[in-house]
Amino acid sequence: MFKKRHSIEEVEEGKYLSPKFDKNGLIPVITTDFKTGDILMHGYMNSNALKKTIETKKAHYWSRSRKKIWVKGQVSGFIQKVKKIKIDDDQDSLWMSVDIGKGASCHVGYRSCFYRSVPLGKIKNPKNLKIKFNENKKVFDPKKIYKNELNPTKL
Amino acid sequence: MFKKRHSIEEVEEGKYLSPKFDKNGLIPVITTDFKTGDILMHGYMNSNALKKTIETKKAHYWSRSRKKIWVKGQVSGFIQKVKKIKIDDDQDSLWMSVDIGKGASCHVGYRSCFYRSVPLGKIKNPKNLKIKFNENKKVFDPKKIYKNELNPTKL
Repeated sequence: MFKKRHSIEEVEEGKYLSPKFDKNGLIPVITTDFKTGDILMHGYMNSNALKKTIETKKAHYWSRSRKKIWVKGQVSGFIQKVKKIKIDDDQDSLWMSVDIGKGASCHVGYRSCFYRSVPLGKIKNPKNLKIKFNENKKVFDPKKIYKNELNPTKL
Repeated sequence: MFKKRHSIEEVEEGKYLSPKFDKNGLIPVITTDFKTGDILMHGYMNSNALKKTIETKKAHYWSRSRKKIWVKGQVSGFIQKVKKIKIDDDQDSLWMSVDIGKGASCHVGYRSCFYRSVPLGKIKNPKNLKIKFNENKKVFDPKKIYKNELNPTKL
């Protein structure tokens, strides 16, 4: 399904899909809500996860913490139905637009993983820089949904 | 400016900025157009690029091909004025919303780097899978703008 990367011109201006997987065999994926356009999460796929996602129209990622293919929503029920996949100029990142209904994409319980923003401009006291919550209400309670599942966040 | 990552709870639910830089000292950054919400590009920042971006409100990235900090628009003139930066749950990726006026973000000449989409569903002949152009008109001619600059795309 994926073509070899023969020339820069072919990769940038051509019609063939030649994704660049990094040293670990992964390509970054940005996932947005197809209705609002909001970014829901930033994940990774390996070659197999990308093939499965294209064929089934159901988002499959590579979980770096669990080291396995991960069908998003398998535990929580919040499956991502894929509406569109775009690839960038040098074919080393993907933009995937998905339908999650009224569900959530974030294992902490928020709809989007990006629920906090960073203050901008010269900071008086950089040691005390604080990020601000933009989403205050969780869509679900992760303790109830994930029970004994390991938290994927690594320090 | 950045706090050490002490606990998963603090990273996920806390108010301090504790970005996780990978083995190469980089964090992925998704850049969107603050007016349309469209994704313009997917890049990387090191710690210094992130500090400079926050303080100057002008997007600074780490160029993996040129191995140096790169003020976006330095050559093309298409500076990115930063409107908002969000960070995700485990603080290992950033979403930056920018103003590029009527400019472009893609070194190939298109407004967005994501100018092609991938067909979805069971593909009859996977060897002939073709991606589709969604943007047909370039905002600028890269040959005129970049002249002798090296193309950042790597095979």
